[in-house]
Amino acid sequence: MATFAMPSPTTAETMTKERANPPFDIRKLSIAMHGSRKSLLLKEKFMAEIARDPAFHLADIYDLSKDQIRERTMEKFASLVHYVTSEPLDVFNYRMQLISTVDPGFWTRFGVHFGLFLGAIRSGASPAQFNYWIDKGVIGLNGVIGCFGMTELAHGSNVAGVETTATFDEQTDEFVIHTPHLGATKWWIGGAASTATHCAVFAQLIVKGKKCGVKTFIVQLRDVQTFQLKPGINIGDIGKKMGRDGIDNGYIQFTYVRVPRAHMLMKHTQVSREGIVTDPPLAQLTYGALLSGRIAMVADSSNTAKKALTIALRYAAVRRQFAAGKNQLETQLIDYPIHQRRLIPLMAQAIAIGFTSLILTKMYNELTEAMEVLEPGDPNLKEVLEKLKETHSTSAGLKAFCTWACLETIDKCRQSCGGHGYSAYSGFPNMYADFAVQCTWEGDNTILSLQSGRALVSNWADAQKGKPLAPGVAYMSDKANLTAKSNGKLDLADIDRAWACVAANVVKKAASDFAAHAAKGVSKAEAMEMCSQSRFIAAKLHTIGYIFRMFRQACNEQEEGPEKQVLTDICRLYGLWQIEEQGASFLKYGYFSGEQMDKVQSEVDALCLGVRKVVIPVIDAFAISDHIINSPLGRYDGDVYTAYFNHVRAANPPSKEHPYFDRLIKPLLERKPLEEEDVDAAMGFSEELAELEKERKASKA
Amino acid sequence: MATFAMPSPTTAETMTKERANPPFDIRKLSIAMHGSRKSLLLKEKFMAEIARDPAFHLADIYDLSKDQIRERTMEKFASLVHYVTSEPLDVFNYRMQLISTVDPGFWTRFGVHFGLFLGAIRSGASPAQFNYWIDKGVIGLNGVIGCFGMTELAHGSNVAGVETTATFDEQTDEFVIHTPHLGATKWWIGGAASTATHCAVFAQLIVKGKKCGVKTFIVQLRDVQTFQLKPGINIGDIGKKMGRDGIDNGYIQFTYVRVPRAHMLMKHTQVSREGIVTDPPLAQLTYGALLSGRIAMVADSSNTAKKALTIALRYAAVRRQFAAGKNQLETQLIDYPIHQRRLIPLMAQAIAIGFTSLILTKMYNELTEAMEVLEPGDPNLKEVLEKLKETHSTSAGLKAFCTWACLETIDKCRQSCGGHGYSAYSGFPNMYADFAVQCTWEGDNTILSLQSGRALVSNWADAQKGKPLAPGVAYMSDKANLTAKSNGKLDLADIDRAWACVAANVVKKAASDFAAHAAKGVSKAEAMEMCSQSRFIAAKLHTIGYIFRMFRQACNEQEEGPEKQVLTDICRLYGLWQIEEQGASFLKYGYFSGEQMDKVQSEVDALCLGVRKVVIPVIDAFAISDHIINSPLGRYDGDVYTAYFNHVRAANPPSKEHPYFDRLIKPLLERKPLEEEDVDAAMGFSEELAELEKERKASKA
Repeated sequence: MATFAMPSPTTAETMTKERANPPFDIRKLSIAMHGSRKSLLLKEKFMAEIARDPAFHLADIYDLSKDQIRERTMEKFASLVHYVTSEPLDVFNYRMQLISTVDPGFWTRFGVHFGLFLGAIRSGASPAQFNYWIDKGVIGLNGVIGCFGMTELAHGSNVAGVETTATFDEQTDEFVIHTPHLGATKWWIGGAASTATHCAVFAQLIVKGKKCGVKTFIVQLRDVQTFQLKPGINIGDIGKKMGRDGIDNGYIQFTYVRVPRAHMLMKHTQVSREGIVTDPPLAQLTYGALLSGRIAMVADSSNTAKKALTIALRYAAVRRQFAAGKNQLETQLIDYPIHQRRLIPLMAQAIAIGFTSLILTKMYNELTEAMEVLEPGDPNLKEVLEKLKETHSTSAGLKAFCTWACLETIDKCRQSCGGHGYSAYSGFPNMYADFAVQCTWEGDNTILSLQSGRALVSNWADAQKGKPLAPGVAYMSDKANLTAKSNGKLDLADIDRAWACVAANVVKKAASDFAAHAAKGVSKAEAMEMCSQSRFIAAKLHTIGYIFRMFRQACNEQEEGPEKQVLTDICRLYGLWQIEEQGASFLKYGYFSGEQMDKVQSEVDALCLGVRKVVIPVIDAFAISDHIINSPLGRYDGDVYTAYFNHVRAANPPSKEHPYFDRLIKPLLERKPLEEEDVDAAMGFSEELAELEKERKASKA
Repeated sequence: MATFAMPSPTTAETMTKERANPPFDIRKLSIAMHGSRKSLLLKEKFMAEIARDPAFHLADIYDLSKDQIRERTMEKFASLVHYVTSEPLDVFNYRMQLISTVDPGFWTRFGVHFGLFLGAIRSGASPAQFNYWIDKGVIGLNGVIGCFGMTELAHGSNVAGVETTATFDEQTDEFVIHTPHLGATKWWIGGAASTATHCAVFAQLIVKGKKCGVKTFIVQLRDVQTFQLKPGINIGDIGKKMGRDGIDNGYIQFTYVRVPRAHMLMKHTQVSREGIVTDPPLAQLTYGALLSGRIAMVADSSNTAKKALTIALRYAAVRRQFAAGKNQLETQLIDYPIHQRRLIPLMAQAIAIGFTSLILTKMYNELTEAMEVLEPGDPNLKEVLEKLKETHSTSAGLKAFCTWACLETIDKCRQSCGGHGYSAYSGFPNMYADFAVQCTWEGDNTILSLQSGRALVSNWADAQKGKPLAPGVAYMSDKANLTAKSNGKLDLADIDRAWACVAANVVKKAASDFAAHAAKGVSKAEAMEMCSQSRFIAAKLHTIGYIFRMFRQACNEQEEGPEKQVLTDICRLYGLWQIEEQGASFLKYGYFSGEQMDKVQSEVDALCLGVRKVVIPVIDAFAISDHIINSPLGRYDGDVYTAYFNHVRAANPPSKEHPYFDRLIKPLLERKPLEEEDVDAAMGFSEELAELEKERKASKA
């Protein structure tokens, strides 16, 4: 006989109520957010496959040790590798996009081989070299498991500064790969510690005593039969990381390791038998390699944020705390205006980034197709290079601000779940730790933002010269944007103008700061550094405006109907919320008055309340299976407490006997109290302190 | 013979250069930041003690498992407990402040007994009860190890809503403690899983079938000799958390557990033998208990941020990346304006919070002294209660915004160290994971901010009625603040006025939003919820302004000299940087014009550059030993790479044989390529997908 009855309604009943007759077709909305029916169907196929794959058993991952997770990573290799050889590339990449939200550590290890190592060969090898490595088994892993040896202990961002050397020995027609000192040790090399047979090594090419820049060399690390290290190779394990322990990062030191000349990738720069070095006609095209990683990270930012928000919003819908009045049911967290403020704008942002990544991916695929058929002297060359340049800088800003946005979303979601968000089983702690590195690798976010800012400054200069600008920055060409004012409607068109206005103004400010510093006679490079803060702000507002524009474009492309309506509300919410967040610029450049900013605030409140009414159906349209959510707090059925309790109990079975009661706790409990002299002894003050202590006592007396 | 010479200067040489003749006395600055010479000397004594205490060996902690860390926690108990009984309370609390930056998990477990459990007895027990528990050994742990049973699976913030029951049985003169259903399971109880003998249980008091509110009951969980669970007690381990694995959080379910009537703490509410319930005359005083935790968290925010910044700034001083010109030495990270922007304002903030915590602690000690001598009907009662109320709401806002600031600082420091910040051995991953809970426990930060906002709204009402306000909010009484304008000087006085102006305006906005909603006829409670966003903004700007004011006060109290000068620069940097961060309000309420905001930006740039010149000496004044820093990147001597490499190698010795080469890797390497039919099989498309796939192929052809 319980003193209180079980609380009613149950959390599951509350969740069911949230799904009662949604005002739109969830499936249709889901298709819209996935870009096409096919994409949604494929994702559902992938989710079904991994849910049934024992290698992707997820219930216990929050209690695995680093070594256990690493071993499981290799189990997943076996279960996924056949898709690489059997699926069309676009389908497989899409599969990997999902995998990355399931197991980021494995995704990284897998990506190191197929993205970085194979990518280096694809973009750097001559046709003959390419076929050679394909025959070796690079695609199917049958013969070669690769890693990517770029960063060193003392060099990360500055790739051109790596200090590993590759010296051409004309006598033997070989390169000698060497690590000259500790700082030149290859560091963070994913897969090196215990799973790679070969490495794509970035090293300073030295021919006839002359440094010829950083090139890529394929170096075998281990014997394929015995896995013993090759002579001259010294490898160590880099050990525990913040997250992604599924990948075995290692360090590599080379001591005069010899490889045949053919092991330098020679699609671009070539070294002949006689040691003649010929440089590539189209160096810029090598940029292309960086793009795919950035594009993938924008998609991952949206997908991971959606996963975090699914947990936080489903929990917010069923968790009740504080009753509005006596004998009233406690209020659902999601019905508190502040809780709506905490989560719903972040949901709008995740959706905005999702649509941006769909459009960006399309742009990227068109671009790579164009680049692959490109020949020196091609008439389209200039145009393609322009496009490449824009995509390059746009993706730099997007990578930075989207990964930051996602990392912030994960932690805000965790905090919104209160204490339970701090439990490993909520899923947030691992999600945060795993995702955090996205802000650092493939270009530190701050540095990428400044790259984007640098490009914007030169776009501005072009605009002043009346040069035609790429679509992404075309707003700079319209002087009217600088002085635009709100018409007070706060509709998509007005919000769009708002972003064009502030983006144009902050870019202009960065450009004039740069000019002002340059005018003081410092070098252009120094002037660029001195206007960093303005460049950073320019990149930030430009990028947010860009994301809003992509989201708006996606809304406009939807066919009329309730799905388009809800997306349009969410798009307005995103645009207006970000206007609040970046409010200073909108006031500074006069697009909005103070009163209008108050109106923006109440409009955001109203949109949060409006979207809250459909928030569970919208989340359902993210279509993430419970298996992938892997958090009792984010269950589709809302039965959170029972699932959470059962998970905790199953994961932590009582130990037969206490591990340290007799050794540590019993002696404490049976301690005798201290005697006076012990007390004095324990004080152990230095002379100087004893002095001060006396003074204190005196003053007290 | 190395291809390149070892880079010169070495990182250690670079660090030495940074310390060459600082323009101020580091020791003097250090004393200023620690509040007194005695505080600094004590801290140095504590640091020496733990550096020599094997229980506080830290080098290996980043590789310990949850269970290993927990066992070590109990080892530390033994080595610290005698200080509890031998040291003056203020000295011991100060010792704990340091411990919390060394091992937050242990600090929590220790604090659960001495802060929460003992604190509950101190504030809730009658004198007779207090003596009873002291005799039982509560102070020396010899007989009792306590935990604190407040939160439940379904109730956290809403303590009044806990569902555990304590029903008075008049026949036997006992209380029956009972868990009515799953949601009422005591959850997150630190120490319950495997180290506590007793628990201070929060439960609904039920007398003669009537609910009389939540009271505290001391319930024994385990036998002191055998550590077996007492009958009716069901305990489980809550397992893996984001951080602080040193504390053994557990859940507790009570099934009709009987305790004598005397085990209800009766300083305030009392239950007589006959079941007569008498309520306390001064309920408000129970608030006091919450304060100490908040004060400690403000101090911890400053100390932990200083630890993170010591690592990031020392690394930034010796890490070089990109050369300004050919054959030039690569540039120290800290010499990049953007890197100064990333870290130096955060350093200013950590120092600002440090001074705030010194002042707050003083206020708190005076207050508790006043409260302890307080009797019902005391003439000072009203004044003390007013003070208590203000300290209560001020500390709510400070707890929220200081812990948020610290958490953000840790992650920004991590990111500023690039890839190496992601290594567990950098110290950042654990620091972040351990600290994160400070934003959640003892009041979720968002909820505390709204509490502070609610108090500000009522302060505003009082100001309108001409009532005298407490010093912390006195700025509301001066109408002139609402329309103040900058005199363009940007000195401490001008910045102070700036914060008074915006704080007054945002509080006014919150108050009028509240009034507007209330006017629409909703309940006062609803109106409060509906103006949450404005309350939140009010709390945020009020709190930042308060921190600036405390910092400014501390600067003014310094004696003239170069130390005062550098503190004043840092104080200006903090105030102006936060003006940038909260720029919208300063523009909206017209304290600064757009042009003046540009001036603020360049002034922040200039101050960052100025402080950069002395940044290492300032960091040295934080006086945190290498043992406590426990990160090769943050070493005092700057020899980061060698230390990092040696640490990584020592922590990850090569394993004799490969754990899974034969089972997992070899089969991969020796796989046969797929045959055509396997490929088709592997495609495994659903009918619908196969359709779409055909269409795609057709459209391609």
